[in-house]
Amino acid sequence: MSKIACGIDLGGTKLEVGLVDDNGNIIARVKRPTHAHEGPESVIDKINDSIMTALEKSNIKQRDLRGIGIGVPGLIDADMGKVIFLTNLPGWRDIPLAEIMEEKFHIPVKLGNDADAAAYGEYLFGSGRGARNFVYMTVSTGIGGGVIIEGKLYRGASSGAAEIGHVVIDVHGEKCNCGNYGCFEALASGTAIARFAKRAIDRGRHSLIEELSGDEPIKAEHVFEAAGQGDRLALDIIDEEAFYLGIGICNIMAMYNPERIAIGGGVSNQWDMFYHKMMETVRDRALKQNAKVCRVIKAELGTDAGVVGAAALII
Amino acid sequence: MSKIACGIDLGGTKLEVGLVDDNGNIIARVKRPTHAHEGPESVIDKINDSIMTALEKSNIKQRDLRGIGIGVPGLIDADMGKVIFLTNLPGWRDIPLAEIMEEKFHIPVKLGNDADAAAYGEYLFGSGRGARNFVYMTVSTGIGGGVIIEGKLYRGASSGAAEIGHVVIDVHGEKCNCGNYGCFEALASGTAIARFAKRAIDRGRHSLIEELSGDEPIKAEHVFEAAGQGDRLALDIIDEEAFYLGIGICNIMAMYNPERIAIGGGVSNQWDMFYHKMMETVRDRALKQNAKVCRVIKAELGTDAGVVGAAALII
Repeated sequence: MSKIACGIDLGGTKLEVGLVDDNGNIIARVKRPTHAHEGPESVIDKINDSIMTALEKSNIKQRDLRGIGIGVPGLIDADMGKVIFLTNLPGWRDIPLAEIMEEKFHIPVKLGNDADAAAYGEYLFGSGRGARNFVYMTVSTGIGGGVIIEGKLYRGASSGAAEIGHVVIDVHGEKCNCGNYGCFEALASGTAIARFAKRAIDRGRHSLIEELSGDEPIKAEHVFEAAGQGDRLALDIIDEEAFYLGIGICNIMAMYNPERIAIGGGVSNQWDMFYHKMMETVRDRALKQNAKVCRVIKAELGTDAGVVGAAALII
Repeated sequence: MSKIACGIDLGGTKLEVGLVDDNGNIIARVKRPTHAHEGPESVIDKINDSIMTALEKSNIKQRDLRGIGIGVPGLIDADMGKVIFLTNLPGWRDIPLAEIMEEKFHIPVKLGNDADAAAYGEYLFGSGRGARNFVYMTVSTGIGGGVIIEGKLYRGASSGAAEIGHVVIDVHGEKCNCGNYGCFEALASGTAIARFAKRAIDRGRHSLIEELSGDEPIKAEHVFEAAGQGDRLALDIIDEEAFYLGIGICNIMAMYNPERIAIGGGVSNQWDMFYHKMMETVRDRALKQNAKVCRVIKAELGTDAGVVGAAALII
C-alpha cells in the first residue's frame, strides 16, 4: 500500500494541496487562490487540477495515492462525506464532495472539519505527539478547536465537538457572530483584539496603533506591533486577550482534563507577548488537579497543520 | 461468573451499599450515616459491615460477588484505586481504598468519581441508554458531571474530566468555592438559588421564601416551594437559574456535541419549574447544528444513580 496521502486545506481565500508521507512530511505542495465566488464547481475543478499538478511535480502516480483528506472550514457530515454549509464559500450547501472526488480519482476521500484535521495532524506529527488526550486550539480571525480522546479524534454527534470558540465565558457579554453572547471567540480571537483597539481609539485613547494601521482598518497585527514598541493601549489589550485565553484554557481543562493543550493560528505567532499572562491566569484560576497534569504549548506545524492534518485523515 | 456487583455510594453524610444485578436492579441495599468525623478507618469499617449486612439480607455469598465499585465524592486516582483528597470527609488523604478492600474481600475493587459513576450508571441503565455520546449533569449543592464518549466513560488525564460545574460562564462574576470566579456552579447550583434569595431578601425584597424558611437558613427547596405558590421573587430566581442552566447546556453542547444530556440531582426534581426557560435559552443561544442532534432529558435513576453507577464500574 502506498505511503502517500493527499491533504487539502480548503480556505475561503486560498486552497492548498499537499502530498504527505507517513511521517507527516510534505513532499509536494500546490497553493492557489480559491476564487470562492466562482462557486463550488469551479473550486472543485481547481482542487482537482492542483492535485494533478502536485502529482506531476513530485513524479508520483495517481494510482500510488492512498487517499485524499480534505479539511473544510465549516459544517460537514463526515460520515457521509458531505459539505453541509460553508460561511465563507458561497454556494456550498449539501455538496457530496467525497463522492464527487472519489468518482474522479477512484481512491478514498474523507472530509474533516478544518480545526479537527489540524488537531489530528498536530497529534500525529506535531505538538500532540504522545498525549493520549489532547486539545488543539486555533486562534486567528475566530477560535476553533479539535480534541483527541484516548488517542482518537473525537468529532461528536454531528461533527461539532470542540467548538471551543463558542463556549460562553461572559454570559452578559457582547454578541458573537454565532448569535450567542459572550463566546470565547468574541473575547479572545484576533478579531476581538482589533475590535477592542478600535473601540478604545474611537473613545479618544491615543496609540501607535492608529499610525501603524494608517488608512486600513485596525488588525490584530497592528496591535501586536504597537505592543512590541511599548505602546500602553496595545499592551493593555494584549494583557486582556491573554487573560481571556487563560480563562478559555481553564474551561478546556475543566471539560476535557487533557495532558496537553496546543495553541495554533495567527495569534500564536505572538507567543511571547501573551504566554506569561495567560499562564498566570491558568495558575490562579484553573482546577489544580487538572492543571497539574496538563502542559500548554505552542502548536508545531504552523501553516502546514491544515494540509498535514487533512492528509492525516487518510493516514 | 457471578452477575452480582456491589455498588457503594460514599457521601459526606450517608453511605449506601447496594447489590446490583446485570440489569441495574438493586437486589439489596443498606443505608447508614457516614459519621465522617470518625475518620477513614471507622468509615471503611462501616462500609465493610454494610456489605456483609447486604449479603446476609439477600442470601448472596461473598464469593458470588463479582466485585465492588465505589463512587467517591472528591479527588481520586482511578488507576491506582486511591483516594487523594475528599473535601467533606475529614482525614481522607492518599488512602489506597481499593487495595484495603481487596485484601478483605478478595475481589476486584474499583473507584470512580461519584458523578462519573452516576453518569455511567445512567448510560448503562437509565437516561443515557443508546446514546454513544452522553453527558450527565447533577445539580444539587454543587454541579458535577460525567461524560461518555463513543460508549466509554471518559475520565481524563487525572480523573477530572467533565468538571462541568467549574466551567467559567461569567468571567467577571462572583467567587466560586474552587477559588475561580463565575463558575457555572456558582450561578446555577441549588446553593446559588439559595444565595440569590437570601441576597434579595437582605436587600429588602418581600417574599414567601422568608416565611417558609422561618428560622432556618434559606434553602433552594424554600425557593421552589414559594415559586410553586406564585411568589414573584422566587419565580424570578428560578427563571434566572433556568437561564444559567441553559447556558451551561449550550457550553456542554459546544464542547462535547453529545446526542443526549441528562440532568439529575436534587434540583432536577423541580423539572417543570425550570425546563421551559432552560430550553428557551438553549434554542436562542446554542450552536444550531449541535442543538439539533441533542436531547435534554431528566435523569432516570434518581437517588439510585449513586449505587447503581458505582456497581456499573464493575459491570
